[in-house]
Amino acid sequence: AIRYGSAGPVFGSRFMGTAAVSAEDAGETAKLASGKKEDKAVMSYWGVEHKKVVKEDGSQWKWACFRPWDTYSSDLSIDLGKHHLPVTWMDKLAQRTVKTLRWPTDIFFQRRYGCRAMMLETVAAVPGMVGGMLLHLSSLRRFEHSGGWIRSLLEEAENERMHLMTFMEVSQPRWYERALVIAVQGVFFNAYFLGYLISPKFAHRVVGYLEEEAIHSYTEFLKEIDEGNIDNVPAPAIAIDYWRLQPGATLRDVVMVVRADEAHHRDVNHYASDIHVNGLKLKELPAPVGYH
Amino acid sequence: AIRYGSAGPVFGSRFMGTAAVSAEDAGETAKLASGKKEDKAVMSYWGVEHKKVVKEDGSQWKWACFRPWDTYSSDLSIDLGKHHLPVTWMDKLAQRTVKTLRWPTDIFFQRRYGCRAMMLETVAAVPGMVGGMLLHLSSLRRFEHSGGWIRSLLEEAENERMHLMTFMEVSQPRWYERALVIAVQGVFFNAYFLGYLISPKFAHRVVGYLEEEAIHSYTEFLKEIDEGNIDNVPAPAIAIDYWRLQPGATLRDVVMVVRADEAHHRDVNHYASDIHVNGLKLKELPAPVGYH
Ligand SMILES: [Fe+2]
Ligand SMILES: [Fe+2]
Ligand SMILES: [Fe+2]
Ligand SMILES: [Fe+2]
Repeated sequence: AIRYGSAGPVFGSRFMGTAAVSAEDAGETAKLASGKKEDKAVMSYWGVEHKKVVKEDGSQWKWACFRPWDTYSSDLSIDLGKHHLPVTWMDKLAQRTVKTLRWPTDIFFQRRYGCRAMMLETVAAVPGMVGGMLLHLSSLRRFEHSGGWIRSLLEEAENERMHLMTFMEVSQPRWYERALVIAVQGVFFNAYFLGYLISPKFAHRVVGYLEEEAIHSYTEFLKEIDEGNIDNVPAPAIAIDYWRLQPGATLRDVVMVVRADEAHHRDVNHYASDIHVNGLKLKELPAPVGYH
Repeated sequence: AIRYGSAGPVFGSRFMGTAAVSAEDAGETAKLASGKKEDKAVMSYWGVEHKKVVKEDGSQWKWACFRPWDTYSSDLSIDLGKHHLPVTWMDKLAQRTVKTLRWPTDIFFQRRYGCRAMMLETVAAVPGMVGGMLLHLSSLRRFEHSGGWIRSLLEEAENERMHLMTFMEVSQPRWYERALVIAVQGVFFNAYFLGYLISPKFAHRVVGYLEEEAIHSYTEFLKEIDEGNIDNVPAPAIAIDYWRLQPGATLRDVVMVVRADEAHHRDVNHYASDIHVNGLKLKELPAPVGYH
């Protein structure tokens, strides 16, 4: 049931643009543009208005940044303890890189795990996007199928962005934290971009280890909640809808599903690196699309 | 019904990687690694093996680069004649840019529309990816929701890549065409990246006009087919599955749905530009996710 109700954007008479310029539709458009403001929503000339989306229970879907078909129930049974033992010098360099990055992070955040989660998710959402984009460009240049890896890495990026949208509701960034995020993103985006061009094997291994660390810090987060040092506040509405949590879900439930997500990212990235270790290209093995 | 059948990647005993290194699972892993080659598929240590996917009719899904839930029936009733009349100097510059780009293209390809389509789709898949990535990074930096625009632009990029995967089946690139694609991508990616950073309003307007030109050249393509100058060969299997075409579909049917896709991209991009014209940010209006 798709209707253009008042849920869509209401332009009223102030929205300008293509609406008024097509010779063919000028009459109709003029009518729309001068339509009563508080009447019903006006479909733009381009016909790409927001469609009203409803939840399974019939109530209105209130998120534009994700849709009901993007939501899922996280597989909490995933093994949190899996670890890639570093074998090659490259593995060791990857692990050393991650451990080195953790050091300033621990000092900066101490035990403020809510703030830590929010800040780190701004970085965590970068590798999937960069990897997905580079594979996309490579697929176009070489006239080759992707094996689903583009989608798989983009899904990871979107999932990490949802982690950020969730923790934003629990913790508010201060001005110097915002400045830090901008600086860190500038450096990390370029570093990962170059790193992925030089060695996707190394890049995915680094992300695999980053995810192992993420699992560790979310486990610490849970401990702090269980010990009462962090309030187990109600889960944000966005988290309840995204992970299909129960109505009474709490922050603890959210951290549980986020931690499970990180374990899935760990698997995907170590697996991607393993494929390269075997001298294969990612596209030669089907990607774990929809793995969560 | 998810089973790890022989459809998944068979590593046999040669696949190395994380499988052999976890202390906890070493026993089981060693068993897997030495498993009989021609036996059944081996699940990797990371558990992210390709899941067997079936079509609606129960037959096996044979594409890794897209899944049944990515397929759709194109809306062929879309108005192909819509046009954004250039009003501002920026509109005029955008249209001028596109017309200028068309000139060498027409000379290079003449009436070889199959080849032209294949080559141009390698370029067409760039803007959506760049725009989606930049919006993603911006969403992370500013702690802001995307309004669905990241997904919407990434969908456009994936759709364009599917156009390429389709035309690749009909036309084979020669070595100098491959070289040309690499050069053009290098220039266009950077130009669009910078352009989008400077003015998304201009960038989306340019893409809107590019799509208008694409509709025009696919219409010419159809004419050549109807006049018998281009053979109306059977549609590639990948196209039949992606656009849910009838089993006996032909190249003509494929060009019809691709042209409809371009008309949808035109709408999305002119609409995005219009939003900027009105001094709004994309995220302030819900994106046309799933618009095709
Ligand atoms: Fe995360
Ligand atoms: Fe992660
Ligand atoms: Fe296209
Ligand atoms: Fe297009």
